Amino acid sequence: MSTSNTPIDSDRPWAELHDLIEASDAAGAAEVLADLSVEDQKLALAHLAGGEQAILMESLLAEEAAGILENIPEAQAADILEDLPSEAAADIIEELPGSVGADLLREMHTEDSDAVLAELDDRDEAAKLRERSEYAWDTAGGLMRASFASFAETATVGDVLKDLGENAERYADMDVQYVYVTSVDGNLRGVLRLRDLVLSKRANPVTSVMIAEPVCVLVSDNFDSLRGTFEEKGYIGLPVVNESGRLVGVITRQEVREATAEHQTEDYLHSAGILGGEELRSMPMAARCGRRLAWLGPNIILNLVAASVIAMYEDTLQAVIALAVFLPIVSDMSGCSGNQAVAVSIRELTLGLIRPTEYLRIVWKEGILGVFNGFVLGCLLGTIAGVWKDNVWLGLVIGGALFLNTVLSVLLGGMVPLFLKRLKVDPALASGPILTTCTDMCGFFLVLNLASAVLSKLN
Amino acid sequence: MSTSNTPIDSDRPWAELHDLIEASDAAGAAEVLADLSVEDQKLALAHLAGGEQAILMESLLAEEAAGILENIPEAQAADILEDLPSEAAADIIEELPGSVGADLLREMHTEDSDAVLAELDDRDEAAKLRERSEYAWDTAGGLMRASFASFAETATVGDVLKDLGENAERYADMDVQYVYVTSVDGNLRGVLRLRDLVLSKRANPVTSVMIAEPVCVLVSDNFDSLRGTFEEKGYIGLPVVNESGRLVGVITRQEVREATAEHQTEDYLHSAGILGGEELRSMPMAARCGRRLAWLGPNIILNLVAASVIAMYEDTLQAVIALAVFLPIVSDMSGCSGNQAVAVSIRELTLGLIRPTEYLRIVWKEGILGVFNGFVLGCLLGTIAGVWKDNVWLGLVIGGALFLNTVLSVLLGGMVPLFLKRLKVDPALASGPILTTCTDMCGFFLVLNLASAVLSKLN
Repeated sequence: MSTSNTPIDSDRPWAELHDLIEASDAAGAAEVLADLSVEDQKLALAHLAGGEQAILMESLLAEEAAGILENIPEAQAADILEDLPSEAAADIIEELPGSVGADLLREMHTEDSDAVLAELDDRDEAAKLRERSEYAWDTAGGLMRASFASFAETATVGDVLKDLGENAERYADMDVQYVYVTSVDGNLRGVLRLRDLVLSKRANPVTSVMIAEPVCVLVSDNFDSLRGTFEEKGYIGLPVVNESGRLVGVITRQEVREATAEHQTEDYLHSAGILGGEELRSMPMAARCGRRLAWLGPNIILNLVAASVIAMYEDTLQAVIALAVFLPIVSDMSGCSGNQAVAVSIRELTLGLIRPTEYLRIVWKEGILGVFNGFVLGCLLGTIAGVWKDNVWLGLVIGGALFLNTVLSVLLGGMVPLFLKRLKVDPALASGPILTTCTDMCGFFLVLNLASAVLSKLN
Repeated sequence: MSTSNTPIDSDRPWAELHDLIEASDAAGAAEVLADLSVEDQKLALAHLAGGEQAILMESLLAEEAAGILENIPEAQAADILEDLPSEAAADIIEELPGSVGADLLREMHTEDSDAVLAELDDRDEAAKLRERSEYAWDTAGGLMRASFASFAETATVGDVLKDLGENAERYADMDVQYVYVTSVDGNLRGVLRLRDLVLSKRANPVTSVMIAEPVCVLVSDNFDSLRGTFEEKGYIGLPVVNESGRLVGVITRQEVREATAEHQTEDYLHSAGILGGEELRSMPMAARCGRRLAWLGPNIILNLVAASVIAMYEDTLQAVIALAVFLPIVSDMSGCSGNQAVAVSIRELTLGLIRPTEYLRIVWKEGILGVFNGFVLGCLLGTIAGVWKDNVWLGLVIGGALFLNTVLSVLLGGMVPLFLKRLKVDPALASGPILTTCTDMCGFFLVLNLASAVLSKLN
């Protein structure tokens, strides 16, 4: 094969892949990809078009493809699976750990994930995957791992150790720290710590070593409740049971913490106007444009509403054209101050340091800060305006408007996330646009209204 | 004590605490606090002034105080320790797990942490804590746990299992999954998996079961390199050695992932203009004002630079006052588009999907998107402007300016984070202000310059 002789451009490994796929040598491309480091595989795939990524994955062994899909962003992996023939996608899903498979199926369009599930050979596994992919990603059912080591309550310590030894390879994938004891119908009875097992007599029944009636969580428990449970109790891992008490999975503190990180990523992307899940530049252009426009469209309307205030004061503006210079400064600066307050509120809500009803605390804590920062910024900008046009009144109008609008913005910025949280609307997503519209409107109104009031002094 | 008879207002548990502290009944307040749930303790402390928090902590047993400090934000815990007499702070540090203690000491002012370290009874422990607190928080030295189970290379499997059994309680805190084998001078020789130990003959030397020459990381390894190592190899935990090869700690994948979450939080706070670490509303007002102003101050200068463009076109604006309505809309909307590109770039950098040198990829991927989105938004706003003033030329000027400025903003927004990353400046912190200044300037310039060119048609 000619490809293996060509040296790969290590700066742009995707160029080689792209050329081989263009030349219909998918097998050669797959070979090149398999030889790259994990970091380079990720980078190379991110630089290929969606269709090319799928062609490559199809040419790899299902096991190799699964290994790669585990390391790339979920949104990208799900897109690749959608682009593959469902048999090929099913082969890869079979090679993935259950929780990863369920995560990817959840991200896929329903018709695609249904087609893939229909192709799975192991019907039990397919039913389990379907069930798991139907739980929201941030519930116990969505976060848990469904593979765990469990033993009947009639077993002895020796039985368990023997089984663990004989099936060491199988358990190696499970990150076994606890072993579970269940009744004949699969209901959770107790938890065994590996450490206690090792230190106990082999003939003892497991029921004598296990922690009976262990703390457990429900499949439907949501993220906030899970975080609370792990925080309160300090457990490393907890069993997950369904409504009838049957042990269906295990969830670790690590998984809950990873979910926290995902929530934070979501907050960050939402606050920057990225909707509908993560955007990667390898995604189709139409989807990227559409999702960004979905946020920009409503924003342009809000901007128009805010700017309409300016239209109502055209005469004032005509008389003192210098005001036009300060309109965007006053509104931008207040927006910045307000956004700081938004970030602190979202953070305090996330950390559980404030209740969504505590508006008075915001009034108090942001109000004083707003008066002080507003005064400093107002004096600064007011002085600049006054000196520039050699007109004290202009300075007073601009400085006064920035002062008042800063106070208003930090109050609003502090309160909007609490208010949205109570309405169960994502504060990270909606706080910014709401805040900016209000502070723009008020900023324009304050500058132009104060100016109208002292119009004769401004010229 | 009268306090235990008064029912606590469960909606505002801090009111009770505040009143008791005011009445100099710190012991009573400590009793009330100790009875609250973990969530309520956190909430209550967040509502007390810094001084009150310290008074409360001093009245608790060091062990109780340590338990509470572990659950509250690091910045708050460090502030409390600074406010305490150094003996009291040292007593609490002694009760905290080593990694938490080192984290808090790192957050404290050097003179305070030095005073606390001087008060520690265990001088070895103090030296270890000082060493750890001197590593940056996101290096292996800062993230590792310094307690681990290690055995001499001369030990047998039986020796190890016996010791693990006898000291089960001590090891219980360590989350033992791996056991380490060291030479007499403490140098790392191998790693033992608990599973392999259990399944091996008791008389075997540990060297026959251990994984020799194990993968390890250096204390000075930074976050990016750690993340790479864990991603590449899929390990659960890795030993940390110092420059001379001595085993000094253990770092787990979980800890690296938590650090990822912290980096994401930092990105979010920085992008919203919160500098100098986390802000909580219980912190002193002066510090909160100062840190927010530190970001707003430079911003007002950047805003002035941008708005100075408007001042240069006062005549045009005077002639067509309607333009003043659209100036902030064009600059705001372009800012929003640019910020979306910033967020995608920061995300792709974080995930390792793009290299900081790939400006051409941004030009290509953002350019096309910018042309499309700019066209849609430009048509929308242009039509509104044209219809409002019944002037096609006004529509063309506004629509054209928004179109061009959108293209420019997404290009700039996509590239600025890459550029800052190469300069080793935090993209989350600086991208926003740089982008906004540029898009404001260009937006104002485009609207006013295009308008000047067709001024006769606009009236």
